[in-house]
Amino acid sequence: MHVLLCNDDGIYAPGLAALAVEIKKFAEVTIVAPDREQSAVGHAITLSDPLRVNEFHKDGEFFGWAVSGTPADCVKIAICALLESKPDLVISGINQGSNTGINTIYSGTVSAATEGRINDIPSFAISLTSYTYRDFSAAARFAAKFANEYLQLDLPKGVFVNVNVPALPEAEIKGIKITRQGRANYVEIFHRRFDPKGRVYFWMDGERTAEEADVNIDERAVKAGYISITPIHYDLTHYPTLERLDSQIAGLF
Amino acid sequence: MHVLLCNDDGIYAPGLAALAVEIKKFAEVTIVAPDREQSAVGHAITLSDPLRVNEFHKDGEFFGWAVSGTPADCVKIAICALLESKPDLVISGINQGSNTGINTIYSGTVSAATEGRINDIPSFAISLTSYTYRDFSAAARFAAKFANEYLQLDLPKGVFVNVNVPALPEAEIKGIKITRQGRANYVEIFHRRFDPKGRVYFWMDGERTAEEADVNIDERAVKAGYISITPIHYDLTHYPTLERLDSQIAGLF
Repeated sequence: MHVLLCNDDGIYAPGLAALAVEIKKFAEVTIVAPDREQSAVGHAITLSDPLRVNEFHKDGEFFGWAVSGTPADCVKIAICALLESKPDLVISGINQGSNTGINTIYSGTVSAATEGRINDIPSFAISLTSYTYRDFSAAARFAAKFANEYLQLDLPKGVFVNVNVPALPEAEIKGIKITRQGRANYVEIFHRRFDPKGRVYFWMDGERTAEEADVNIDERAVKAGYISITPIHYDLTHYPTLERLDSQIAGLF
Repeated sequence: MHVLLCNDDGIYAPGLAALAVEIKKFAEVTIVAPDREQSAVGHAITLSDPLRVNEFHKDGEFFGWAVSGTPADCVKIAICALLESKPDLVISGINQGSNTGINTIYSGTVSAATEGRINDIPSFAISLTSYTYRDFSAAARFAAKFANEYLQLDLPKGVFVNVNVPALPEAEIKGIKITRQGRANYVEIFHRRFDPKGRVYFWMDGERTAEEADVNIDERAVKAGYISITPIHYDLTHYPTLERLDSQIAGLF
């Protein structure tokens, strides 16, 4: 089994290192990750600039390739230029911070898994839902256990999963919940500040609005101590609206 | 009626100018757009850097605000910091180049409309499906006509539309097709080249694979001379898979 690892926190990130340790126990691993942090880049790809690929060594050994691009770039270049054959699985993570609710669409971590799935490879994204909790061991062990089961699932074309692991010691994790993407939003605040030259700049900040009460929601599940697994896909079509628009606006032109 | 215009080609782009001319005929218009091209940035937002906002003048008159960020940043900052009240409508475009099929998820144009809809504002993205055809007049006039009808539609929460206009004179456009996002993919090629110092770099390129035969697909509709209107949403959950995963993997941990 050959597993491609990627992330959006960059090739130096501890979450990626912890994941690699566990996956290497049973599979051949290739790591292709951004050469710097690429959080909240969404599904960006680099078309107007060249990409650099450098070997990255760690403790005197080859660790992986560092790419001067986005997480989606990394998966594309791995599959199309660096690897001799398609990997059997793409795992993106382990992200430091949750990728639940609306954050799913901003997430570089999810975008790398999306790119794997676009290329017809079973893929999943995995995140540790805290910006400060540094113990990736439970999440990494779960990723390894899940990887083996995941390949048996044979999910429909274009479908993959987004995993969020609570920031808890393994013994305190209550189990798994299969969830849907939450609908809580952010109330954004732009801090208006002055630079040393007296010129205005803005800095984005935000607060989550309240999550819905339903427990089968990604964010709620993690808060309750469960690993959240959300099946997602990249066909954005809202099928229930197709017919309605057909009768309402198809004659407008 | 107050309309917020954004795009991903940047505030200098002719597609944005053509759109503004038509919308200003019947509505108050605010333009907040990136200060440079931001194509294929996906749904990126800028969290780790400050944002600059500069007034942009054209022909001696105030045209709009130029933001040192992504299309999604522009809509966020417009709503949260620049405008006194929410606009009635967000239009993103007119993009130079199609945003059909898988490109929908890479599209900065679509991401600006997504951001409007996340903020509960009726929003749509509009693209002219050619990188070389420079006549935005048919697309701009359609955007104006559509804007008025669109507000009456009262689409479900989170649902909005992605419009693609064929690169044809108005008289040759055959009508409207309500479509779904196509599933054609790209076969990516990475050109491997050497820089002036002899170091390797890669440049991404790609070719579309064949589109499905079904005519009710975004890309097929435009090729057949129709304006394609695709209802989309940003809830990535693949609902049909929820139950199946529940029985197959919920007991794994």
